[in-house]
Amino acid sequence: MPEIDAARVLADLRKLRTFGEYKTGVHRPTFSKEDLAARHWMVGRMQEAGLEARIDGIGSVFGLSQAAGPKLLTGSHLESQNYAGWLDGPLGVVYGLDAARAIGANPAFADCGVDVAAWCDEEGHFGSFLGSRSYLGLLPEEEIDAARNRYDGRPLRDALKEAGLAGVSREQVQPGRYKGYLEAHIEQGDSLESSGLKIGIVTAIVAIWQYRITAVGEQNHAGTTSMKRRRDAGLSVVRLLGEIDRRFPEIAGARSVWTAGRITLEPGAPSIVPGRAEALFQFRDADPATLDRLQAELYRLVEDANRSGPCPITVEILGQSTPALMDEGLQQALEAAASVHAAGLATRMPSGAGHDAQYLARVMPAGMMFVPSIGGISHHWTENTSDEDIVLGARVFCDAVARALRA
Amino acid sequence: MPEIDAARVLADLRKLRTFGEYKTGVHRPTFSKEDLAARHWMVGRMQEAGLEARIDGIGSVFGLSQAAGPKLLTGSHLESQNYAGWLDGPLGVVYGLDAARAIGANPAFADCGVDVAAWCDEEGHFGSFLGSRSYLGLLPEEEIDAARNRYDGRPLRDALKEAGLAGVSREQVQPGRYKGYLEAHIEQGDSLESSGLKIGIVTAIVAIWQYRITAVGEQNHAGTTSMKRRRDAGLSVVRLLGEIDRRFPEIAGARSVWTAGRITLEPGAPSIVPGRAEALFQFRDADPATLDRLQAELYRLVEDANRSGPCPITVEILGQSTPALMDEGLQQALEAAASVHAAGLATRMPSGAGHDAQYLARVMPAGMMFVPSIGGISHHWTENTSDEDIVLGARVFCDAVARALRA
Repeated sequence: MPEIDAARVLADLRKLRTFGEYKTGVHRPTFSKEDLAARHWMVGRMQEAGLEARIDGIGSVFGLSQAAGPKLLTGSHLESQNYAGWLDGPLGVVYGLDAARAIGANPAFADCGVDVAAWCDEEGHFGSFLGSRSYLGLLPEEEIDAARNRYDGRPLRDALKEAGLAGVSREQVQPGRYKGYLEAHIEQGDSLESSGLKIGIVTAIVAIWQYRITAVGEQNHAGTTSMKRRRDAGLSVVRLLGEIDRRFPEIAGARSVWTAGRITLEPGAPSIVPGRAEALFQFRDADPATLDRLQAELYRLVEDANRSGPCPITVEILGQSTPALMDEGLQQALEAAASVHAAGLATRMPSGAGHDAQYLARVMPAGMMFVPSIGGISHHWTENTSDEDIVLGARVFCDAVARALRA
Repeated sequence: MPEIDAARVLADLRKLRTFGEYKTGVHRPTFSKEDLAARHWMVGRMQEAGLEARIDGIGSVFGLSQAAGPKLLTGSHLESQNYAGWLDGPLGVVYGLDAARAIGANPAFADCGVDVAAWCDEEGHFGSFLGSRSYLGLLPEEEIDAARNRYDGRPLRDALKEAGLAGVSREQVQPGRYKGYLEAHIEQGDSLESSGLKIGIVTAIVAIWQYRITAVGEQNHAGTTSMKRRRDAGLSVVRLLGEIDRRFPEIAGARSVWTAGRITLEPGAPSIVPGRAEALFQFRDADPATLDRLQAELYRLVEDANRSGPCPITVEILGQSTPALMDEGLQQALEAAASVHAAGLATRMPSGAGHDAQYLARVMPAGMMFVPSIGGISHHWTENTSDEDIVLGARVFCDAVARALRA
């Protein structure tokens, strides 16, 4: 079987960390100087691996095999969240690259090819999954015209121009080219670590259902407005979130998660009864029936709240994605590979985070594999995975790629 | 008895509304062009009333009687909250001015004097009760040096200089000059209106006890962090505020109020479990025992929360004022006056809002009188009081001033 080069995998990952190094992690936002340098370095590495490499018109890096036979697409992303981890993204790109090298070097796989993609802006500095959506024809020019960096407002068009990508064609998926897409990633949670496991075989990427909860009360003086008379919008939202906190555990799935990530009271002054309050609320699950049940419960709790008052609460749906099921054949390839290199140390699990694979799954069989995150930490510069786990993951990944090519 | 001139009272209040008129209210922040014009106009009105008038070095307007006998100090403030009501402040200044005129015109009170003060910045654009604290010697030069406009950052020193007040002396209370201080104000709540009453005789100005409640959890990915593993600081604060909401009504006083005016989650993103959460919380009451009881309960609920987890919560005291008791003699003067002009329509009540009278009460007997606020609305341009109630209040106020001078 094709064999990865453990030292080369670790060296590539460590080299990528030097682009925008921050403490033990990286600060490499999409189209920053460091990010562009990392993309150009990756083009060179892909070319050294015998792939035809280029950066396309949305910033994704592609390394395409010239082999004539069956091909698999692999990849992940290169940019990071701000001041975040070194492996979130690069791990999957380097695994794909090393699998391409290993398979390219193995005479038994001379007819097979592994393509590698580093999808641009998976981390959403300028938009939502720009690279993979562009590849699938789901990113209209008008959306690019309108997109701006969410932190500094810089237009995406300006960033593309400064990157030398204005007018460059955007890569499009070639129907029938691939047997499937395989992506490796750090888990970003602690399920593997806390169970002493090494490999996660992703069954589905969960859907995210997002809501804006708004209460409209009456802004008033916090000293002169009696408790009986006041209509405190903040209190209405606090009460509703409290009811969700009590009720959701009783009806949620085993892996459901729900989060109120932002609460805003207006005007937000210590001596003013809030006249308006807003909460951003979301839940995630891989099971459509569970998603429906959670939403029905949310609506029921809001109805209850509106019956008891004091302020009317409305719920606006901000997003309702569909769970992306991973291909059973690719799950089996991963399982078979894991049984060789990490026997008894793999488990099937959903992905609570979104990944480019959820878009690729729309047009081809897609699979994902996780390696453990130390302490479950993610989106922070302390994110890490042990060298042993990185290397073990690369072995399982490459083996699964080989199996998928021959399936 | 001295008699106010109803038409003159209404005309003065309507004239004051023209300085910074906004819809049916005013926008007249401290030391704005409109605010300074109002202060200078008031100096002229005081002089016409026979008072020796000037604006002092902190911006307060004083009109001092030259009478030889007993004197009472009256007043309130002229600046407004932003885009707020026309009577909040001016009502008390105009009542004082008309009482000064009425008493000055009454031969039976030839030896008596009524002084009028418009305390600067009661509304706190640059600081906290600057005018009355300056008058009591509680505003050091260093605090003036450091004070800035809370909305635009303009230094108070610059504002004073542009107002022509740099180097002007600050008026100081003259020990023994006054029999007491009497201030009229709109209620800013709906107790009077909802009870069909016309006059509030203030028993005490409530104390405000303010706290910063902080929960420190662990910022994490809202998709990959299981419910069991996460330490959601926002949820900890929501749960605590829910407990306060359940428990405080059982132990609060009849007129206690409590408010969470601001909740902040960090980083405040929809897909990130909040790692830190903060709430600004306050309660108010006129009774020290009730204040102590509410604080003990707050601490007990925080201890409970810290025992059940998941995030440690700390409470920082931001302020603990003392209730300011109003003088019993002045309350009796107001009650006697009300029994003549508004028989059966007066009630004793605490003030839930802070007023300059709480500072004046430190050095002389102080009293306050309320007139009804339509719909209880305050700090909004729709704040209003009917002309009939304004005139009735002026009659009661002037009568009470006369009684207090003769007491």
